[in-house]
Amino acid sequence: MSPSIKRAYTPVPFTAVSIQDEFWTPRLFANRERTIPTEYSQLKDTGRIDAFRLDWMPGQEPIPHFFWDSDVAKWIEAASYSLATHPDPDLDALLDEVIALIASAQQPDGYLNVYFTVVEPEGRFADLRDAHELYCAGHLIEAAVAHFQATGKRSLLDPLCRYADYIGIVFGPKPGQKRGYCGHEEIELALVRLYHATGERRYLELSQYFVDERGRRPNYFDLETKALRQAGKAHHADDYFLPTMGKQFDHRYNQSHLPVREQTVVGGHAVRAMYLFSAMADLAGETGDESLLAACERLWANLCTTRMYITGGIGSSRGNEGFTFDYDRPTETAYAETCAAVGLVFWNHRLLQLTCDSRYADVMERALYNGVISGISLDGKSFFYVNPLASLGGHHREAWFNCACCPPNIARLLASLGEYIYSTGENDLAVHLYVSGDAQLNWRGQRVSIRQETRYPWDGAVNIQIHLDQPDTFGLKLRLPGWCREACLKVNGQPVDIAGLLDRGYIRLERAWQNGDRVEFDMAMPVERIYAHPNVRQAAGRVALQRGPVVYCLEQVDQPVPLDHLRLPREASLSAAFEPNLLDGVGVITGEARAVDQAAWGSALYQAGDLILRRVPLNAIPYYAWDNRQPGAMLVWIPETE
Amino acid sequence: MSPSIKRAYTPVPFTAVSIQDEFWTPRLFANRERTIPTEYSQLKDTGRIDAFRLDWMPGQEPIPHFFWDSDVAKWIEAASYSLATHPDPDLDALLDEVIALIASAQQPDGYLNVYFTVVEPEGRFADLRDAHELYCAGHLIEAAVAHFQATGKRSLLDPLCRYADYIGIVFGPKPGQKRGYCGHEEIELALVRLYHATGERRYLELSQYFVDERGRRPNYFDLETKALRQAGKAHHADDYFLPTMGKQFDHRYNQSHLPVREQTVVGGHAVRAMYLFSAMADLAGETGDESLLAACERLWANLCTTRMYITGGIGSSRGNEGFTFDYDRPTETAYAETCAAVGLVFWNHRLLQLTCDSRYADVMERALYNGVISGISLDGKSFFYVNPLASLGGHHREAWFNCACCPPNIARLLASLGEYIYSTGENDLAVHLYVSGDAQLNWRGQRVSIRQETRYPWDGAVNIQIHLDQPDTFGLKLRLPGWCREACLKVNGQPVDIAGLLDRGYIRLERAWQNGDRVEFDMAMPVERIYAHPNVRQAAGRVALQRGPVVYCLEQVDQPVPLDHLRLPREASLSAAFEPNLLDGVGVITGEARAVDQAAWGSALYQAGDLILRRVPLNAIPYYAWDNRQPGAMLVWIPETE
Repeated sequence: MSPSIKRAYTPVPFTAVSIQDEFWTPRLFANRERTIPTEYSQLKDTGRIDAFRLDWMPGQEPIPHFFWDSDVAKWIEAASYSLATHPDPDLDALLDEVIALIASAQQPDGYLNVYFTVVEPEGRFADLRDAHELYCAGHLIEAAVAHFQATGKRSLLDPLCRYADYIGIVFGPKPGQKRGYCGHEEIELALVRLYHATGERRYLELSQYFVDERGRRPNYFDLETKALRQAGKAHHADDYFLPTMGKQFDHRYNQSHLPVREQTVVGGHAVRAMYLFSAMADLAGETGDESLLAACERLWANLCTTRMYITGGIGSSRGNEGFTFDYDRPTETAYAETCAAVGLVFWNHRLLQLTCDSRYADVMERALYNGVISGISLDGKSFFYVNPLASLGGHHREAWFNCACCPPNIARLLASLGEYIYSTGENDLAVHLYVSGDAQLNWRGQRVSIRQETRYPWDGAVNIQIHLDQPDTFGLKLRLPGWCREACLKVNGQPVDIAGLLDRGYIRLERAWQNGDRVEFDMAMPVERIYAHPNVRQAAGRVALQRGPVVYCLEQVDQPVPLDHLRLPREASLSAAFEPNLLDGVGVITGEARAVDQAAWGSALYQAGDLILRRVPLNAIPYYAWDNRQPGAMLVWIPETE
Repeated sequence: MSPSIKRAYTPVPFTAVSIQDEFWTPRLFANRERTIPTEYSQLKDTGRIDAFRLDWMPGQEPIPHFFWDSDVAKWIEAASYSLATHPDPDLDALLDEVIALIASAQQPDGYLNVYFTVVEPEGRFADLRDAHELYCAGHLIEAAVAHFQATGKRSLLDPLCRYADYIGIVFGPKPGQKRGYCGHEEIELALVRLYHATGERRYLELSQYFVDERGRRPNYFDLETKALRQAGKAHHADDYFLPTMGKQFDHRYNQSHLPVREQTVVGGHAVRAMYLFSAMADLAGETGDESLLAACERLWANLCTTRMYITGGIGSSRGNEGFTFDYDRPTETAYAETCAAVGLVFWNHRLLQLTCDSRYADVMERALYNGVISGISLDGKSFFYVNPLASLGGHHREAWFNCACCPPNIARLLASLGEYIYSTGENDLAVHLYVSGDAQLNWRGQRVSIRQETRYPWDGAVNIQIHLDQPDTFGLKLRLPGWCREACLKVNGQPVDIAGLLDRGYIRLERAWQNGDRVEFDMAMPVERIYAHPNVRQAAGRVALQRGPVVYCLEQVDQPVPLDHLRLPREASLSAAFEPNLLDGVGVITGEARAVDQAAWGSALYQAGDLILRRVPLNAIPYYAWDNRQPGAMLVWIPETE
């Protein structure tokens, strides 16, 4: 990997990190043993893998869909990560088989896409706006890089380099090249990863081209629309978009309404936005482009102060699978696609490497412990595409989707979770997430090991041990989470005052570290009542419960009355406990709430006079764990009462 | 009109009622002087009237729409009512002109419909489900009856009798007849009116046929769909319905899912439901059919205890312009079509005549003072189609609609408002609504006059005087409104104890009435805090304000802080006042509320810790009067605080 002075921190790769964690290990086990195999079966059963045989004939069902390649690619990425940490000859062989099939589908010129080879060969790169062609290429590139890094094999990397080279010939600013870019961002960040894997700067430059070209005038997609119409054709999603958007395609949908450096408001399709912004953060880190970083920071501020759910879910609207307007936080109809929360992790993880600012880790953590893992059942076998913040009881995880982006997206994130825990800078080792296990680094000329022991997120105590051959003076940075209002710290048993050590939200302990040094970090983790900004009308008069990074919800099965009858008194005492036999072991919050007395109310639809409230127990579970028992209503934002 | 023993009460016709009322007179003036002329201009300008010339040629724009006839018909009805109470030679001549044009469009066989004469002549009665053909016939019949009753002229009545006779030949249970009925109910109630106007029992029987046939198996619309498909055709709204309803037409949409007597849940399109139920109430009243009355009562109970807005608006969903499920009361996205509230008045007014039960008058009043008149601007020139209970500021009245059902619907109701105030039974004169003015009756063998003086709905005091030539012993029934929790009554200055006089929600004063007898009825009218049933999740933790029959709202222009920041303390003292210079004179409610201190909050989207609330004045105006000043947000259900 080329060193970059602009990106001050580098993630410690997940291959160097071993997770032995009460919270995460069962999830990673389920991901490895159930999710990844289940997803392979789905990909196989639905024809997505065999489609690479290129033997589809007109009239045959199912018709390969133009985003199928990406589903397979994300699965390869997840399986490769799994292989890197948990060797598995069968999985290795299966990957080889799938990859050989994919490689066999490559065309002589390097092109590699099932749909535009067998279904619509005349349509190659003619509908960049809707047909996900470069998006599929991007996911295949990410898969190739992951497989190469996991196995050292170039069986997928080489074909994807050839494809990327072909794309670099077709697209670009030179005469004879298409000045287009993809309607669904993804290839931009993938090319940066390909650059990291190969050291070939042309891939970085191609990513830069795609990012810089986006939103220029005249808008490429307008030209494309014109060309399609002249040829008597239409965009692949015109039928969907044009009625929804009122006859005219809204360029905000795919972030092409303005050049990226001029964008200030996070709009359009949420996953698209996250992938673009991730690439922008990557490029800012690689090239030191201040204007890209400034754009990221503006967009981040807009997102995180006005457009994010408390769960780290993003995207309020099903209509555009994305953003609406500032402070609009519908709950039952929240979209909050699992992929968008995953994308939010990607983007914030990248921003975090630039300056090691804890606000990015806070968002990353918020998404990880809530809106990301809500996307998968505890048994690893079913998935939410949409993660609402309230449900009447009809929303349930499913084993698969026709548009199956979310299941492999969560699988690849979980399989590489180790990568998100630590980063190293020149003089600093940063701990972003509190997860039991250890990391083995080659850093500053020696082997350094760091070990965490914690019951986080159920307990705020973290014990850290440093092992190294020779003493070394560096900064150990411990993230002080945004949710934490009181913490204490000891080094080798001696209390340390945190106040003077804070650096962008991290406690920086600089000392000559000795082998066996111990750090005890204890974050007070009371039950917190969280309010939303007063402009969030959907949360007016309501409160959410959070403890540590975990956002809680009420599930009907735990309550003695209908969810909508509950009110939480402002002064209610709430206590936390760990229930080892509930939902694979979860922290719960209990307390005494009030319920409207329905018997006293009678049958009137509206009436005057005070409501009669009676005392009822309240039981909250972590949001991520809902819909793992009997179906029923769910609620995050609880009406308050006096 | 044929007497009916089943319908115990008969409305005192609006022609016998003179309204001189602070609240209603300005509205009726605006309706007469601005709404009716404006609507004529719209009908003329949009080609709806000239379409009856039948000179449309293929390729010409605009293409007459299949519901255009009904828009013209409802205007004729409104204009006829206006003419009956306010003679106007110009309007009389204009009506003659329009009616002559309509009559000229009648076909030799009696058929009378623009669209199916000039645009799609081969489609006559082939798509009863969607094409509104009998619906248009129904509105033309109502127009004809109204014009006949207003003017004595048979110029429209005779053609519509011929058309009704033709319909009676085409439709019915006999061999060779179509066993169909309209997808948009309306003709059923119109035929009862035609029966009343002409005394011809066959019209009543045809109405009975349509009502009885509805929902029978096999479903007529399924047979129709099959026939259309066999002919290579489709229903006119398939493009709209099938994607919305998931490939299969949902018969609940037009109340054809079950025979009407088996229906227990108010579902589907709200206006359709109201017109059907109105006809059912009519037929129950005419024929004494207990099973129809029982069905009405079941449906009424379902509607009024689970599916009605506090404004009397009905229909929660834009998708089906109608009902969703019990207790579902979305506010910003409420549909609450103006026509549906008008239809709710029609139905309840009919039910009221059967037994003089005040619960029907309560619903009628709730709709009239809130969800009906919100549908028209104070100047009478613009209209809401949709009447939400909260707005972010983007919802405004419009001068006209492509689907222009609402503007003439509200015009015909206002122009005949006098009809809703009084009813006479054999021995009772009932006062349903408190409106200043007088009614001149020919009743029980003499001229009886009743005069009300009141500032209702701003004040609960009503003074009533009875004039009659000879003393007569009868019951004067005064409605004790459902909203009223304390009232006192005097007859000729002597207090009367109400308690023993209550009869189905009416205070029945039986005595030998003398000329000049005075009744003073005083209803305490405090500001009421209204709650919704605990199952109404959208109103959880919220309160609405009502005084008398008027529901209040907060409009942004009156508040010092953004609407969503406001909280109403449970113990806040609220006071009512009349503001003569505001919104043409309205009652207002003022008090002290709390607002979240945004400066103290900062910019965080979510945070722990108590909200800081500061004192702010609260100013509420009647819901019906919103959006008559500068555009802004509006809210009915206000979050409460301690």
